[in-house]
Amino acid sequence: MSYEERSAGHKSVIAKKLLDTIVAKKSNLCASADVRTTDELLALLDKVGPYICMAKTHIDIIDDFTYEKTVKGIQELAKKHNFLIFEDRKFADIGSTVKAQYKGGVYRIAEWADITNAHGVPGPGIVAGLHEAAKETTSDPRGLLMLAELSSKGSLAKGKYTEECVAIADDFPEFVFGFIAQNKFQSSKGNDWLILTPGVGLDEKGDGLGQQYRTVDEVIKNGSDVIIVGRGLYGNNRDAVKEAKRYRDAGWNAYLSRI
Amino acid sequence: MSYEERSAGHKSVIAKKLLDTIVAKKSNLCASADVRTTDELLALLDKVGPYICMAKTHIDIIDDFTYEKTVKGIQELAKKHNFLIFEDRKFADIGSTVKAQYKGGVYRIAEWADITNAHGVPGPGIVAGLHEAAKETTSDPRGLLMLAELSSKGSLAKGKYTEECVAIADDFPEFVFGFIAQNKFQSSKGNDWLILTPGVGLDEKGDGLGQQYRTVDEVIKNGSDVIIVGRGLYGNNRDAVKEAKRYRDAGWNAYLSRI
Repeated sequence: MSYEERSAGHKSVIAKKLLDTIVAKKSNLCASADVRTTDELLALLDKVGPYICMAKTHIDIIDDFTYEKTVKGIQELAKKHNFLIFEDRKFADIGSTVKAQYKGGVYRIAEWADITNAHGVPGPGIVAGLHEAAKETTSDPRGLLMLAELSSKGSLAKGKYTEECVAIADDFPEFVFGFIAQNKFQSSKGNDWLILTPGVGLDEKGDGLGQQYRTVDEVIKNGSDVIIVGRGLYGNNRDAVKEAKRYRDAGWNAYLSRI
Repeated sequence: MSYEERSAGHKSVIAKKLLDTIVAKKSNLCASADVRTTDELLALLDKVGPYICMAKTHIDIIDDFTYEKTVKGIQELAKKHNFLIFEDRKFADIGSTVKAQYKGGVYRIAEWADITNAHGVPGPGIVAGLHEAAKETTSDPRGLLMLAELSSKGSLAKGKYTEECVAIADDFPEFVFGFIAQNKFQSSKGNDWLILTPGVGLDEKGDGLGQQYRTVDEVIKNGSDVIIVGRGLYGNNRDAVKEAKRYRDAGWNAYLSRI
């Protein structure tokens, strides 16, 4: 099914917004901005911004983070270049704790990240807690991705774990709109989940700390809707603009061959 | 086996330090300080400090966090009252990411937390990444607890997941010294793991967001070495000093009946 058709019927406001952005920019590329300073982060997102549908941040590795400079900076670039913001927090605690972590602390993720993600390991309470936090924080749409599988070596997110995680997602169709995963999952309730896939690289196989890479064609053919690329864009002194265009085109062409 | 005997033979410097502190203070109580401001956090730890072996923090829910005031304040109280600091971060990402999250960002957890914890879900790379970060940050001992089980309703940390998580721990005996868990685990390599148990409460059954409570006697009898108590100490306008003494005594007496 095309991104347009899926947007038309989707239950999640954030999923619609993401699908519409993908279509408008002919890009299913999410840039993973794993840099360590605010200046590097903003410079990178300004460069690759025109070519991406989404920026994935790890706000908690920015050593000189300030809400005023870092968050406001990301928000301005998201508006300028029309991309969504996905804070890759990987929440993994019980409901009452993740609720406070998502809303509060110095990062106040619920205020500015369109999308965040969570592991299913604590059970359904984690999704309930995050959903409460989102509703208490803002009237803007917020969406959650669940981690049902991981691209790292020896991951325990497989088999029954993956199945149960998918079952949790099925109970929150307005808030959970998809997965960080390597494969598609079937919803038993007719939910149309988006699959966002990390560990995508055209030039490398791994990083020595367990990360493993697959090609754009492989993952899109396998059902991925958004490719997440980090070091492939800016690692090894790469030209981020050139690489962003290359991955955008590879992702879009792979999508066109699939539908 | 007594805490003294276990300390004498332990491979982890942090485990020895914790066991010695438990013995010195006749307390196997860890206070979980889930408050939202620096003043509340420091006031609470100053009150319960004499009665605990460890303070468990969620540094990322402190809305007015500053390294200077919050972290330095916790460190001073840890010294004043002789307790260890355990940042309950529940790391849950791939090795390269957790390494940056543990060392960096505004929280710089590796600098000040004697202990932190991680989920096994990404595979062994998460432990390798955290261990690298600890060694690169400080020459002070650092220890990791793994989450092999959770006390929340519908947790996916069970069965094969739990087994594989335990197997990961076995490969890092100097760094991983125990588990956040409800039960004891057998090491296939002769490692003596400490079991720290959350979800302990003498007066409540649950919180409406999936948390479930068990009594002190139940968990210690079942093999727990340290009881983690949060809302039981200061929830519902309780007198934290009185409750800390009560839980300390309950934990110590339960331990004496076990050995």
